[in-house]
Amino acid sequence: MRYPDAIQNVLDELGRLPGIGPKGAQRIAYWLLARDAADVQRLTDGITQLKDTISFCPTCWDFAEGGEDCRICTDQRRDSTLICVVEEPRDVMAIERTGEFRGRYHVLHGSISPMDGIGPDQLRIRELLARLAADGIEEVILATNPNVEGETTAVFLAKTIKQLDIKATRLASGLPVGGDLEFADELTLGKALEARREL
Amino acid sequence: MRYPDAIQNVLDELGRLPGIGPKGAQRIAYWLLARDAADVQRLTDGITQLKDTISFCPTCWDFAEGGEDCRICTDQRRDSTLICVVEEPRDVMAIERTGEFRGRYHVLHGSISPMDGIGPDQLRIRELLARLAADGIEEVILATNPNVEGETTAVFLAKTIKQLDIKATRLASGLPVGGDLEFADELTLGKALEARREL
Repeated sequence: MRYPDAIQNVLDELGRLPGIGPKGAQRIAYWLLARDAADVQRLTDGITQLKDTISFCPTCWDFAEGGEDCRICTDQRRDSTLICVVEEPRDVMAIERTGEFRGRYHVLHGSISPMDGIGPDQLRIRELLARLAADGIEEVILATNPNVEGETTAVFLAKTIKQLDIKATRLASGLPVGGDLEFADELTLGKALEARREL
Repeated sequence: MRYPDAIQNVLDELGRLPGIGPKGAQRIAYWLLARDAADVQRLTDGITQLKDTISFCPTCWDFAEGGEDCRICTDQRRDSTLICVVEEPRDVMAIERTGEFRGRYHVLHGSISPMDGIGPDQLRIRELLARLAADGIEEVILATNPNVEGETTAVFLAKTIKQLDIKATRLASGLPVGGDLEFADELTLGKALEARREL
């Protein structure tokens, strides 16, 4: 027996969402069927509105509403001499959650990955360099991911940034706080040893 | 920092779906933002259409399209003397997947649960009894869940059905096929012993 077309169609669409398999899609579809129509419309309206109103901030390339500068770029209390460069918008939220950073951001939308055919031209690097040339930036924190592509991107950017006489820094690698030495992988433990601090 | 309202709203709505937590909601929201608008509209249109076209089959109370009888109830090749009673529409699909059942279904939409204030009147039991009175049914398979509420419901229904001179049967309880005796819980193992078959 097949599902009615309207159900099968939603199962297919839900199954394409990240982290949702066939079982999860079925669970959500039946949940939606059991809801009030108004309740479900809040979800679909929300998604439609998301696509209609969210675009990229023309300064930092994070998500922003209505084609204007994002909340961080327009916040005058934030330190405009310090830029934190990240790969994706979700990384902005991750750093914001620490509450430790009061500068601005720049979102590259990816990392240099020759394997996937992604070079500097496919990222928002030109826009970053334009900001660095204009804005009186003193330090750029390269907060790309601590993996091969992220490191490559950071090294590439550091070279260019230093030529502009701007300080380029990188997030520290080391043991996760609350972690267990025994369970750390060799690379992380190696980095932690190499970057040991005097007490 | 807070998300832009349009993003926060979608995060809230997605977070209410079953099996999706805050991290999953964020992952899906960013995925939606990165998609083509047309792509995302296929999802929202599908969900809207789901709510518009799917209703309950007035015979078996499974989901059906356009207020008409469902595909199983209208399929003349299926055995109309045999009804399998299940709690939820998803249970219909589970039994259909076995390919072992050629009769019809009846969906109760729940099980008797005094704790949650659900008695026989809140379920589609009146509709089941009307079918049994009219249709020339010979056997009713009570395929409610093998838990307290499902057993209570099955016992309640069996009593009523037997008074109508119709055979009432229950799905066998026992060890899962491919399972390991060692890992079976006592209740399941007890049921399997009790219902042992001669070879």
